[in-house]
Amino acid sequence: MSQRLTIALDAMGGDHAPDMVIAGAEIARERHPDVQYLVFGDAARIEPLVAKRPALKAVVQVHHTTEAVAGDAKPSVALRAGRQSSMRLAIDAVADGRAACVVSAGNTGALMAMAKFVLKTLPGIDRPAIASFFPTLRGESIMLDLGANTECSAENLVEFAVMGSVFARQVLGVSEPTVALLNIGSEDVKGNDTVRAAAARLRETTLPGRFHGFVEGNDIAQGTVDVIVTDGFTGNVALKTAEGTAKLYAESLKRTFESSVMARIGYLLARSAFKKLRMRMDPRRYNGAMFLGLRGVCVKSHGGTDAYGFANAVGVAVNLAVNGFNERIKEEMQRLGPATPLPDTKAAAV
Amino acid sequence: MSQRLTIALDAMGGDHAPDMVIAGAEIARERHPDVQYLVFGDAARIEPLVAKRPALKAVVQVHHTTEAVAGDAKPSVALRAGRQSSMRLAIDAVADGRAACVVSAGNTGALMAMAKFVLKTLPGIDRPAIASFFPTLRGESIMLDLGANTECSAENLVEFAVMGSVFARQVLGVSEPTVALLNIGSEDVKGNDTVRAAAARLRETTLPGRFHGFVEGNDIAQGTVDVIVTDGFTGNVALKTAEGTAKLYAESLKRTFESSVMARIGYLLARSAFKKLRMRMDPRRYNGAMFLGLRGVCVKSHGGTDAYGFANAVGVAVNLAVNGFNERIKEEMQRLGPATPLPDTKAAAV
Repeated sequence: MSQRLTIALDAMGGDHAPDMVIAGAEIARERHPDVQYLVFGDAARIEPLVAKRPALKAVVQVHHTTEAVAGDAKPSVALRAGRQSSMRLAIDAVADGRAACVVSAGNTGALMAMAKFVLKTLPGIDRPAIASFFPTLRGESIMLDLGANTECSAENLVEFAVMGSVFARQVLGVSEPTVALLNIGSEDVKGNDTVRAAAARLRETTLPGRFHGFVEGNDIAQGTVDVIVTDGFTGNVALKTAEGTAKLYAESLKRTFESSVMARIGYLLARSAFKKLRMRMDPRRYNGAMFLGLRGVCVKSHGGTDAYGFANAVGVAVNLAVNGFNERIKEEMQRLGPATPLPDTKAAAV
Repeated sequence: MSQRLTIALDAMGGDHAPDMVIAGAEIARERHPDVQYLVFGDAARIEPLVAKRPALKAVVQVHHTTEAVAGDAKPSVALRAGRQSSMRLAIDAVADGRAACVVSAGNTGALMAMAKFVLKTLPGIDRPAIASFFPTLRGESIMLDLGANTECSAENLVEFAVMGSVFARQVLGVSEPTVALLNIGSEDVKGNDTVRAAAARLRETTLPGRFHGFVEGNDIAQGTVDVIVTDGFTGNVALKTAEGTAKLYAESLKRTFESSVMARIGYLLARSAFKKLRMRMDPRRYNGAMFLGLRGVCVKSHGGTDAYGFANAVGVAVNLAVNGFNERIKEEMQRLGPATPLPDTKAAAV
C-alpha cells in the first residue's frame, strides 16, 4: 500500500455528503487507477455506499467517526471542539504521513484553520493562500489568494507570487509563467502602498517565471497572465463577482432562448455547440481550491458540488502530489533567501 | 437661457473626441429637447461638426480652447498645468453656475482631481465617490466607490451608503432602497475592521433606505440589494472583473455559433431574441459613472464609448440634475448630524 499515492477524504463535508463524496471517489478511481483512499466519516452511512462499488471498495479504507464540522461552524470553534471530526482526522492522516493529500467539501474557514494548525506552513512561507483556476480567453489562469487572508503585507504577496508561479510551472506545465499583481490600473503609481511595495520587490526577484507588473480586473478573464496575485479580500470578491456575472449571463441566455418559438428552434439546432460552451464554462470543471503553502496537499471542493465536481477536486490533489509541488516551493523559497522587511507596507493582520 | 438645464461638455475627452461627443450631443438633444449645452474644446474641429446639425446648433454654445488633458496625464499634473484645458473649463462652468452638470469622457483621475478641487464636496461629505449602474437578474443596481478612493475609512463607507440610497430613491425611483456592504461572507464576523465598523454604524443609522448587512461578490449580478457599498480598490476590481467575465462569455458564445453549420442556422433563427440579449447586456447602456458628493453634477463617460454611449452619460447627468440629487444628499447629511469618530477603523489615506 505504501508505494501508491494515498488521499484522505472528508466524507462528511459538503451539501450532498457522504453520497456525493463516495460517488466522486468512484469517478476519480476510474481516472486515477493507482490512487487509494482513506475515507473519514460515519461508517454506517459510508460502508453501504462503498459496498455498492466493488472496484472502489478495493482501494478504500473507511475510518469511522460520528463527528463532523458543521457548515456554519466558526473556524475557532471547529479547531477547539472538532478534534474527532471527519475533517480533522483526514488532515491528521496527512500530518502523520498516512496520506499525501486531503480533500474536503466542508466549511472553508474551518478547513483552513485546521490545516494551518495541524500541517503548519512550508519553510519560508508566512501564510498559506487559497488558489483556484479561472477560465480565460486563452485557456486557464490561476489566482491567489481567494480568501485565506483578509489583509496581506507586501511580503505575503511576494510569497503568493512565488507559490503561484511554481504552481503554473509544475501543474499547468507553463515553462515560464507570467505573474501579475491585481490592481486598479496598470501604471506604476496606481494602487495602495502594499501592492506598490510588492511590485518593487518582485521586479528585483528572480521568480520561477516572469513578473508582468500590474493587471486590472478585466485581465483575469482575458488571460493576460498565467498567475494573478492579490489579497484574500479582493480575490474573494473578484472570484464571486465573476461567478455571479457568468450566472447572470447564462440565465439571460436561457431566457433569450425561451422568449420565442423561433428562438427555441434555433436553440435545438445549435444544441450540440451549446453543450460544448456549457462544458467549457462548467463551474465543476474549475472545482477544487488549493491551499498552497502548507506541509501537505489540501484541496477544498465547492460545498454544493456533485460527484463529478468532487472527482475534479480529487484530480487537482493528485496533480499537486505527483508533480512534487511542495518540494519545488521549498527549493524556490530557499533560493530567494530570508525575506528582508520592506518599507511602506501595511502590517499583516491576523 | 437661464430657465433651461445647461450641461457643460468636455469635447476633447475620449478616444473618439470630438466627433463622438458632438454626435452624442445630437442623440441627447433628441431625447432631452429642453437641455442646452456649453461645449469646450478646439473650435476649429467642433464648429464644423455642429454646423452639420442645425437643431443641435440652436442649443449649443462653443467655447474655444486648444488645450486638452492627455489620457495618460497624471491627475496632479493635469490639476497644475491644465487650467485652460477643455475639461477644466467645463468644470469651471459648473462652479460659477453657468451649467448644472459636466460630462467628460476624458482621463478619470484628472477629472476627479479637478472636480474635487474646483467644485469641493457637499457639506457633511468627506470624500466623493464614483458610482455606476450594474445590470442584475432583477434589473439594475448601483455600486460605489468604483475607484475614487483606494482606501476608505468606515465613515467614508457610511457616507457612500447615504449617497447611494439617495441616488437609488431619486434616480432609480426605489421608494425604500436596500443597501449593503460588499464583504467576503455574509456573517457579522467576516471581513476586516473597516467593513465591520461601518456595518455597526449603519445598523444604528436611519438611512433613506434599509441596511441589509453584508453581501458577497455574486450578489452584485444577483441583484440582492439596490445599492452596494465598497472601497474604491475593491469596487474597481469588481467592476472590471464583471466586465471581463461578460466579455469572455460573449466571445465564447460567438465562437459557439461559428463552430458548425447547424449552430449558424440556429443563430439565424434566434437572431431577434439575441438582439434583445445584446441590448440588455450592452455596456453602452450602463455608460456614465457618476461622481457623487460634489457641489455640482459630474458624470464620467467611458473613454472608448461611441456617440450612443456618450448620449447615455448625458442622460445620467440630466437625471441627477432634474431629480435634485445634491439637495437631497445635503438634507440627509444634515439629518444624520456630524459624524462621530468610530473605533477600530483604518485611517483614511490620501
